[in-house]
Amino acid sequence: MTTSPDLRITERSKVKRLPMRAAYDRATVDAILDSGLLCHVGYVIDGAPYVTATCYWRHGDLVYWHGSAASRMLRTVTGGVPVCVTVSHLDGIVFARSGFHHSVNYRGVTLFGEAQKIENPAEKLAALKHFTDRLTPGRWEELRKTTDQELKGTTVCALAIDEGSAKVRTGGPVDDEPDYDLDVWAGVVPVSTVMGAPIADARLRPGIHEPDYLRRIAIGRNDLPKGTG
Amino acid sequence: MTTSPDLRITERSKVKRLPMRAAYDRATVDAILDSGLLCHVGYVIDGAPYVTATCYWRHGDLVYWHGSAASRMLRTVTGGVPVCVTVSHLDGIVFARSGFHHSVNYRGVTLFGEAQKIENPAEKLAALKHFTDRLTPGRWEELRKTTDQELKGTTVCALAIDEGSAKVRTGGPVDDEPDYDLDVWAGVVPVSTVMGAPIADARLRPGIHEPDYLRRIAIGRNDLPKGTG
Repeated sequence: MTTSPDLRITERSKVKRLPMRAAYDRATVDAILDSGLLCHVGYVIDGAPYVTATCYWRHGDLVYWHGSAASRMLRTVTGGVPVCVTVSHLDGIVFARSGFHHSVNYRGVTLFGEAQKIENPAEKLAALKHFTDRLTPGRWEELRKTTDQELKGTTVCALAIDEGSAKVRTGGPVDDEPDYDLDVWAGVVPVSTVMGAPIADARLRPGIHEPDYLRRIAIGRNDLPKGTG
Repeated sequence: MTTSPDLRITERSKVKRLPMRAAYDRATVDAILDSGLLCHVGYVIDGAPYVTATCYWRHGDLVYWHGSAASRMLRTVTGGVPVCVTVSHLDGIVFARSGFHHSVNYRGVTLFGEAQKIENPAEKLAALKHFTDRLTPGRWEELRKTTDQELKGTTVCALAIDEGSAKVRTGGPVDDEPDYDLDVWAGVVPVSTVMGAPIADARLRPGIHEPDYLRRIAIGRNDLPKGTG
């Protein structure tokens, strides 16, 4: 197993506020990326910022996302311009004894760079297979095959996991020392993302069993390496 | 009760992809905003996009967020520049019979405009109280009071709920007609955000009861007006 190098710390990727919460190692970064399904993609049009939520997946050293070839977001971000991809998981609400020290527990990754459009149809198809495999291993082979027309109408792009940072907060409140004597409840309300029982489509053909992989989807799970945060 | 006008549809706020999923009415927009705790704020520095996750709250016709006065994000967005605030809730993963028609159920709002810094200390304090009240009504009065120093060190800013859009997808997969005959499981795996049982701080003084409001936090709940999506 090759160990990927840490994220590149630059003027824009260095965490300045609360740097003790920052991490740049790939084990932490990948664990956060692999726990999510929605990212927020930032881009600039005519000097103004846009933030679009979209599904993403990681494969190796790249983060991918996709959509209609007609999407303004995808046409913009594949045009050799700077983009920012942020993935955030809320893990808890931290109740302190003063308003000031209230906080949230979270895991987040921000990446900067230029996204590349995957032009080669075979690579594009492989990337889409990775997206499906990551959520539901085995499903890709069960599906009706992707047509050339569908593939043509889909833009897939990728951003290198290179320049960026992770930020993690865990644990309870940190109060001012005298405030520990106050009669105020303090602690954490955990927040988690859970998958419910699968709901079959009303038009599902009789006799089709619910695949096991549906009960194993791990989106939102905290898989941070031990000792992080 | 005054009815707020719909969001302003502009070149940048008009939903172009899948416009049937778009909404601009304030009942839908406010329901989505009031279900969230984390937003993603987009801004531009030296022509490059930045996306920062941060807590937010709505009060009336404004969306607020806050943080350290030293935060680069807050110093930037309060400088009379365009910002974009996006709130996204993932409600389900939609499994279709082809890869192409897979989708997600979600509720999202994107707002555009210029954020205003709340300068007046009394207004700032009132805004912070609204943040606490919104999550945990009654808690503000229990807390150690905010000091002048803390208030001075905190920047609070607000963006008008004016130019923007909501986007909502609900329901099952929509497959190509011939694909309904395939032996492929199709349906939805619901995704939800849940609050766990409160975990008291290790240094909590004995005899302090867990406040009832901790069990009523509604972050992530789908409170969309009936008939939406």
